[in-house]
Amino acid sequence: MVTPFKRSGDLDLEAARREASFLVRAGVNGLVVGGSTGEGYAMKADELKAVCTTVRNTAKKLAGDEFPVLAGVIANSTKEAIEYALAAREAGADGVQMTPMPTYLYKPDIKDTVKAFRDVGEAVGLPIVIYNVVPTNRLSAADFQKIASVKQVVGVKQSGVDIHTLADVILAVGGRMAVLSALDDMLLPSLILGAKGSISAACSILPDMCVELFRLYRQKKIEACLPLHWKILRVVRVTVYRGLNDVYGDMLGRVKFAINAQGRNVGYPRAPVSLPSDDVKAEILAALRFAGRPVNPKLR
Amino acid sequence: MVTPFKRSGDLDLEAARREASFLVRAGVNGLVVGGSTGEGYAMKADELKAVCTTVRNTAKKLAGDEFPVLAGVIANSTKEAIEYALAAREAGADGVQMTPMPTYLYKPDIKDTVKAFRDVGEAVGLPIVIYNVVPTNRLSAADFQKIASVKQVVGVKQSGVDIHTLADVILAVGGRMAVLSALDDMLLPSLILGAKGSISAACSILPDMCVELFRLYRQKKIEACLPLHWKILRVVRVTVYRGLNDVYGDMLGRVKFAINAQGRNVGYPRAPVSLPSDDVKAEILAALRFAGRPVNPKLR
Amino acid sequence: MVTPFKRSGDLDLEAARREASFLVRAGVNGLVVGGSTGEGYAMKADELKAVCTTVRNTAKKLAGDEFPVLAGVIANSTKEAIEYALAAREAGADGVQMTPMPTYLYKPDIKDTVKAFRDVGEAVGLPIVIYNVVPTNRLSAADFQKIASVKQVVGVKQSGVDIHTLADVILAVGGRMAVLSALDDMLLPSLILGAKGSISAACSILPDMCVELFRLYRQKKIEACLPLHWKILRVVRVTVYRGLNDVYGDMLGRVKFAINAQGRNVGYPRAPVSLPSDDVKAEILAALRFAGRPVNPKLR
Amino acid sequence: MVTPFKRSGDLDLEAARREASFLVRAGVNGLVVGGSTGEGYAMKADELKAVCTTVRNTAKKLAGDEFPVLAGVIANSTKEAIEYALAAREAGADGVQMTPMPTYLYKPDIKDTVKAFRDVGEAVGLPIVIYNVVPTNRLSAADFQKIASVKQVVGVKQSGVDIHTLADVILAVGGRMAVLSALDDMLLPSLILGAKGSISAACSILPDMCVELFRLYRQKKIEACLPLHWKILRVVRVTVYRGLNDVYGDMLGRVKFAINAQGRNVGYPRAPVSLPSDDVKAEILAALRFAGRPVNPKLR
Repeated sequence: MVTPFKRSGDLDLEAARREASFLVRAGVNGLVVGGSTGEGYAMKADELKAVCTTVRNTAKKLAGDEFPVLAGVIANSTKEAIEYALAAREAGADGVQMTPMPTYLYKPDIKDTVKAFRDVGEAVGLPIVIYNVVPTNRLSAADFQKIASVKQVVGVKQSGVDIHTLADVILAVGGRMAVLSALDDMLLPSLILGAKGSISAACSILPDMCVELFRLYRQKKIEACLPLHWKILRVVRVTVYRGLNDVYGDMLGRVKFAINAQGRNVGYPRAPVSLPSDDVKAEILAALRFAGRPVNPKLR
Repeated sequence: MVTPFKRSGDLDLEAARREASFLVRAGVNGLVVGGSTGEGYAMKADELKAVCTTVRNTAKKLAGDEFPVLAGVIANSTKEAIEYALAAREAGADGVQMTPMPTYLYKPDIKDTVKAFRDVGEAVGLPIVIYNVVPTNRLSAADFQKIASVKQVVGVKQSGVDIHTLADVILAVGGRMAVLSALDDMLLPSLILGAKGSISAACSILPDMCVELFRLYRQKKIEACLPLHWKILRVVRVTVYRGLNDVYGDMLGRVKFAINAQGRNVGYPRAPVSLPSDDVKAEILAALRFAGRPVNPKLR
Repeated sequence: MVTPFKRSGDLDLEAARREASFLVRAGVNGLVVGGSTGEGYAMKADELKAVCTTVRNTAKKLAGDEFPVLAGVIANSTKEAIEYALAAREAGADGVQMTPMPTYLYKPDIKDTVKAFRDVGEAVGLPIVIYNVVPTNRLSAADFQKIASVKQVVGVKQSGVDIHTLADVILAVGGRMAVLSALDDMLLPSLILGAKGSISAACSILPDMCVELFRLYRQKKIEACLPLHWKILRVVRVTVYRGLNDVYGDMLGRVKFAINAQGRNVGYPRAPVSLPSDDVKAEILAALRFAGRPVNPKLR
Repeated sequence: MVTPFKRSGDLDLEAARREASFLVRAGVNGLVVGGSTGEGYAMKADELKAVCTTVRNTAKKLAGDEFPVLAGVIANSTKEAIEYALAAREAGADGVQMTPMPTYLYKPDIKDTVKAFRDVGEAVGLPIVIYNVVPTNRLSAADFQKIASVKQVVGVKQSGVDIHTLADVILAVGGRMAVLSALDDMLLPSLILGAKGSISAACSILPDMCVELFRLYRQKKIEACLPLHWKILRVVRVTVYRGLNDVYGDMLGRVKFAINAQGRNVGYPRAPVSLPSDDVKAEILAALRFAGRPVNPKLR
């Protein structure tokens, strides 16, 4: 889920509570705070702790103690990752969603990456879902076979842009860990290939439609899924990415606008990112209408 | 310059002092702490302050107050950039070397990027050298023409991999700001095209050779530069990048080993990055010998 | 389908006749000669005519006059494309499968590309399936919307590496022309998203499995498709591409070996491409066994 | 040099003769017909022979028998390469400028590529300059070390986009074969790094300026070269490529317009490529004026 910020750039915990309530009521099976869409990369550990505490308490109250809440760990060193993961633990998170490190420019040898996930897992004692999203530090299916030796790693959120690699990851480690799809425009094909679910910007923008898609898929009603698939894809193409390997630079502003436009107020992205220009807003509204979403009348 | 860390991952300020002395005595015209090679992306603001204070005091004592020391600002939000830049100011830095933000995945509209440099510059009052290195947030020559309106921006350190773009940046804004080259393997051509100097890993590894190259270039002794050029290129190819757009994932380990091997002890990179394997060490030693460097006998 | 060549590099028309018979009997719904897998890029117009005549006569005798046979047109100028398309017409082809032009380095303005398809279509009077495969001349979904004005264009074979773009093409022009998938590792998801069928190396290597997948898909037996999907994917990963945007340089040798290994003799690729090394042969045999293929005992 | 075509797409041999005369008189040290800029990829072997015969006879009459004329061989199979190389030999070419094969999609193993250059060299008996330009079939510095065993290979024309690789090729095989630069925007740095000369679109558009740059360089007047460097770069940026790895899709139309605009009539590119739009023409004229070129008054 997104992290609501005020215009000043400060956390808006009340809006986070409201958005978490909405998502739980829409039927999602879990929540992640502080991922990419959640601007976790731009938050301090104490901010992650605050938002995680708020969301966790809200979600567990509504959906029960079993409802899982994860916190994002986006870090540039093992030391920093442990700091964030400890903050998550203190906030009562059920696990962490952690990127390979660093996210900045470099890709250590896979043995160093395996060690890093183990070091963080052992230091914090929480389950880890690896968030495979960093362009300069992509993990391959073969890398995951090596990471499988780390007990704390229980899942993969495969972004890394393409469903072709998702298939390879499922083939390589799908029996050992849960593979989740962050391929916003390919949720249905992801499920068919064996993804266990999705953690994605699409789910943050259109939670009820994604939940419905998942429900129909589990009932084997593939054809009934297709209209939902195309609607989601259409919205994703103007909010998340234009196409393969072409994420919008201002995605965070677009996603927040798309949520605000539906009447849920999640505020602003953190500077330097801002809400989109009027032209872009018009494109997003058109896609939301195509998808049959009720759009805030003030924005029409 | 690199930031020395102990095996534990803690800062080694005494080693930083020693390395700064060595570099000043080798004749460099300024120092930058906390850049990419300096692992600034993996340091907290108080760590940046500590290492910057040490290096600044060392350098100014040896080379005088005019000798410039910059501190790296590698941040994911305007808020965080200001935090680091303030730390730099408190440490007595003469300016900051700042990446576009965020370094993580996204590229805001150029107007937001212009605003961010202005906001940081106004908040801190230090001159800014833009460090154009982030693969997901590259600034073009046209972008720099827009950034030129920000008074605090006094220079560009053009990495971004290729000298073709360096030429475009010089053509676009070379009259307005100092363009410096981070193209480790193309220092001589960079100077010929009008770069005012270099801030690069090559200068950190082989400071005296880079200084000598610069000196000969300023005396118009181009042919005398060439043997130096090829020696530097050969070392760069096994420590920094294999070729265009192909930076070594474990570059920081390679660079630190290449410095350690010459008898200056700069310790370890911060985890998860580590020193290279024995095979890679042998390649680096071979390149250093090709370049005529005295290699630590214990490592032979 | 592949084009069989003798060791000398000459066409082996008898082997082409045999392979065409095999494919028709395996249940395919049409045949294409002289595509990428068919080494059409390395054939003269008279060679295309010869192989097309042989395959056409064989196929129509076995499967009736309605069975479609297309000929590949891979050309670097409108003039050359017309030459190849005329050869196809003389050979009795039912249509051409044509790449954007040129295949070499350049990408003309889309208006020039639209004109080129129209010029060839009008000169030859055959239906055109556009083969969107050229890395330096990729057509986007928006490009296809412009091409839709050309009456002779009746279909798209979408290769261009990724299923994300396939989805965009289906959304943009799926109602106007048949969209076929050349995504060898994603045939099932392609069908689910609305592709009308597949023309691909996978179909050339494992025709009966691809036919069976298609049959099950049309009966809505998605789960029964999955084991076939994974077997095909496994073979594709060692014969066609390693992953996204990573086609094997010696794909043609790998594909021919994979067919030969199953007991159908399709000879050699044309020089400079050759059959793969022993190591690669072993990998391909392992994948074929994983897929449950009877492998030539002499090769075991 | 470019190959002049009439509006109909037919060769214009009289214009080729005129352009060859102009280039020889401008002081170039050799000519290549049928390269990329020469649209060799879109010509039949008999057309290559015709234009090569015309240019060769013109050049040798003006500049003497020692003046070298090469013919491009851009082919998709060894068989086709031999056909083109024989046409070149019959036209009296002094050598061939040959791309790795195929130019279409695939990259054979390096041993197959080495064999292909040897087979063509032995079949035709002409010296070969390898033209390293094919995006899907790039040769590395290490590849050239293997190719060095082929006697007929006497040179490399390094395009492949970046000067960083040019440096590696010079370091690897500069002592064994002549390394020539096709880096249109980096001719001066190429020469400084050891390139023996240039074969490039820049030389076709601005032959006298390139000749002058080369002359000044050989007199060690580096500073006098710089104004020429920037003028050439400015023209290259609107005719050949926008920047690294970003060749204009309609480069051939742009280059021909830039030549026509200077009063030399080289006609049209072959369809589907066409002359550029009015907007682009205006940009090209602006760059030519920046470079101080006399522009055809009718086009002002």
